[in-house]
Order: sequence, then structure tokens, then C-alpha cells
Amino acid sequence: MSAPQLMTPDQFLTHWQGHRRLTRRVLEAFPEEQLWSFSVGGMRPFGALVLEMLMIGAPMLKGIVTGEWVGSPVEGQPTKSDLLAHWDADTATLEEYFPQLTLEKFQEHQVAFGQYPGLVYDLLLYGIDNEIHHRAQGYVYLRALGIEPPPFFER
Amino acid sequence: MSAPQLMTPDQFLTHWQGHRRLTRRVLEAFPEEQLWSFSVGGMRPFGALVLEMLMIGAPMLKGIVTGEWVGSPVEGQPTKSDLLAHWDADTATLEEYFPQLTLEKFQEHQVAFGQYPGLVYDLLLYGIDNEIHHRAQGYVYLRALGIEPPPFFER
Repeated sequence: MSAPQLMTPDQFLTHWQGHRRLTRRVLEAFPEEQLWSFSVGGMRPFGALVLEMLMIGAPMLKGIVTGEWVGSPVEGQPTKSDLLAHWDADTATLEEYFPQLTLEKFQEHQVAFGQYPGLVYDLLLYGIDNEIHHRAQGYVYLRALGIEPPPFFER
Repeated sequence: MSAPQLMTPDQFLTHWQGHRRLTRRVLEAFPEEQLWSFSVGGMRPFGALVLEMLMIGAPMLKGIVTGEWVGSPVEGQPTKSDLLAHWDADTATLEEYFPQLTLEKFQEHQVAFGQYPGLVYDLLLYGIDNEIHHRAQGYVYLRALGIEPPPFFER
């Protein structure tokens, strides 16, 4: 019998992958020709925001689990299909590494990428929150381009 | 001795209130005269997005704790200072009601507002995620208005 949990590790991973599925749908809906050019209010194009997500999510988890902090290998301005391929590779990385986290590990203090200190659960939440935040910019870009984004509540 | 937790209820509340402080800063930065008129891509104005946040957050928590599902009493197009006053009242509501949630309660199945089924931890997370999502629209609106939004990483 395990003790009651506010949220179990399995539930946390399901929550995370659900958000990642939604972000993937936003990326799929984004027109290739606007991915690195379109922006609102001088903000970064959606391609750059997706690169930032790829730099944080899976590399953060790998760093927490292994102690080796390596940035994302994705550089330049990848095509949409390249970004989607990296996205799917990271989905598999999460499935491989996340189950290695013990309950105690979530409360461990770490310094992500050598510069962001925090407790593990909070570092992971930050990554998800950052993805939600930048994906929402993608929603506005899509609307501004006259494209209906995927529904927020579907994961 | 309590069993290890991925995230404790205190940590969850701190996380939530941190996001609410950031959203409050975005609302404070928003020009009153654009609150109910400005929009990008035909989306709702920021005032309407804040009303939606006020409809979900504290009323969701109260419903979960008391079993009584009542919507937000805020209607029409309140001024910025009215919205801020409601925001602060809800901050106090969270401090009052959240500590009444037991660990077991977070795993309970409920139907929020009579129409959204889910486990309590997931319903609460949905509210936070929805706030992050709509606040990020506010970020884009601010940028489009030439206003620098508050930093995302500060809570």
C-alpha cells in the first residue's frame, strides 16, 4: 500500500505528455512558410518558441536523472517536419527517463543547466508552464493568420 | 513523519499563488482604455480573459471543498481596479479554502460546475493551465501595444 499522493509520478507524466500532444497539434497546424517569419508585436516567430521548448523539456529531465546537463542538439531554423521529428523523439525520451524519478527525487534541490536552482518538481513544472505560455503565443499567431487553433481542453 | 510527496499541498498552493501574482502584474500593466477593446486576430479582449480566470480559480476550489458550485459574481465589464479587487479577494479565498483539502481529496473524482468531470488535482491544474494560457495572450496583446510585459520567470 502506498501512501496517498496529491499527484502520482504517473499522473504527472500523463499531464506533461498531454500538454505536449496539444503543442504538437499547434505546430502541425502552423503554416510552414510562416514558421520562421511571422510574429506579433516584435516577438519571436513560433519556430523559435518551439526550439526553446525542445531546449528545456527533455534535456531538463535527462539532466535531472543523469546529472549531465546537455542542451538541445537542435539548431538553426529546422523545418516543421524536423521539429516534429525531434518532438516525437523527446516523447520517447520522457517515457524512458521519467519513470526513473523516485518520489524523493522530486524534492531534491538541483541547479538546472548549471544556472537555474530549484526543487526537481518545480523545475519540471516550470518547463511545462513555459511550454503552455509559448504555445499560447502560437495560438494568437494562428488566429492572426486566420487559422483556427486546436481546442485547449483536448489533450 | 509524513510519506514523501512528489509535491505537497503547500507547494501546490505556493505554485498557484505565484502564477496568480504574475497574472496580477500583467493586469496591472494593461492599459485601462484597451482592457475591453483591444484584441489580436479576433480573440476576446484581455478583460474578458481575466473574467474567465475569476470564474474558474476560486469558484473551482470552493466547489471542490464545499460541494457547492457557484459561478463568479463578477459580471459586465468591470474596471481594472474592480478586477484587481476581485483578484485580491480570491487570493484570500485560496488561503482559506486550500488548506482544507486532504491528500485523499486530491484524488477524488468530482464534476466541476456540474459539467467538467475529473480528479481534483487535475481540475485544479486545469485552472492554473488555463490562466497561464490566457495570460500569455495578454503578453502578446501588451507587446502589440508596445508595452513590455513583466518577466515570466518572476513569481
